[in-house]
Amino acid sequence: MIPISYLRFNGGLMITVLRLGHRHVRDHRISTHCGLVARAFGADEIIFSGERDDKLMESIDKVARNFGGDFKTRYERNWRRIITEFTGVKVHLTMYGLPLESELEGIKNKIKSVPRDMLVIIGGQKVPGEVYQLADYNIAIGNQPHSEVAALAVFLNVLQPVPDFSGGKKIIPQKRGKKLV
Amino acid sequence: MIPISYLRFNGGLMITVLRLGHRHVRDHRISTHCGLVARAFGADEIIFSGERDDKLMESIDKVARNFGGDFKTRYERNWRRIITEFTGVKVHLTMYGLPLESELEGIKNKIKSVPRDMLVIIGGQKVPGEVYQLADYNIAIGNQPHSEVAALAVFLNVLQPVPDFSGGKKIIPQKRGKKLV
Repeated sequence: MIPISYLRFNGGLMITVLRLGHRHVRDHRISTHCGLVARAFGADEIIFSGERDDKLMESIDKVARNFGGDFKTRYERNWRRIITEFTGVKVHLTMYGLPLESELEGIKNKIKSVPRDMLVIIGGQKVPGEVYQLADYNIAIGNQPHSEVAALAVFLNVLQPVPDFSGGKKIIPQKRGKKLV
Repeated sequence: MIPISYLRFNGGLMITVLRLGHRHVRDHRISTHCGLVARAFGADEIIFSGERDDKLMESIDKVARNFGGDFKTRYERNWRRIITEFTGVKVHLTMYGLPLESELEGIKNKIKSVPRDMLVIIGGQKVPGEVYQLADYNIAIGNQPHSEVAALAVFLNVLQPVPDFSGGKKIIPQKRGKKLV
């Protein structure tokens, strides 16, 4: 089986995360975590919809500048356009969806067949019903309520894209304590 | 290899999550997500330290009542006591730690040898240096800054304890749309 990382290495797969329904103040930290998780687990960019929040994007951009790589953040009011105009595989993460375990091979095959880019859609408190129709896959990381941050992390961790953190500060793993160079 | 779920089934393994340094308002939603992730990915309880926040615990308890199982939340001001008096395996999740991939077998073996309960410690913005000393393992889910919510989810997902959601509402996985019974 061709690993996803092979496709990425060959310029085949680009992962965009779309975060729906961001709200000022209330969602600031959760949305920040969504952005940092997207970057740390190998996505290429995150698009925020809902309320525009430049501070949110700046705080993620700052981490990206410090820790390297080429991760992008941007705002787009019209989430519907982002989804409908996206030509790759669209995966919506929701606790109401089908189990990741049963759908993963299908998703991987769909990516490989062309190969095509991937859009990973995460909510917001209230995800419009239309999103469930526009997505190619509605995928549950367990059918229990938990967190879009967690769902995104587990999904990307299973997909294993190869992240690029070149040019940034490096953490040197330690048994105890902290080392940053 | 004996799966963790076997130990759990035999009353061998109980997982407690300790969330350090909770702050009112600012951390409310991140801490809620930590609690929901702990429950959804099979931990038995979460202990919050930092500022006491009854609303936080009530919101997690409410989900636990609705969706089943026996997940517990509690507050403990003295986090040091929790860690020092804990007799099982203590794992601190931190981006400065050693990679999960290289340490996982060691952790699993340590659990199996007795078998003993597990304490999973997650930060807070500023984790006291002492925590790195008191933990048996300082483990990184990637050495990039991201999220304690994500780190907890990926760690528990790899450990695969068997969750108990008996007696609650059930989500029936759907290709499109929502079904809750």
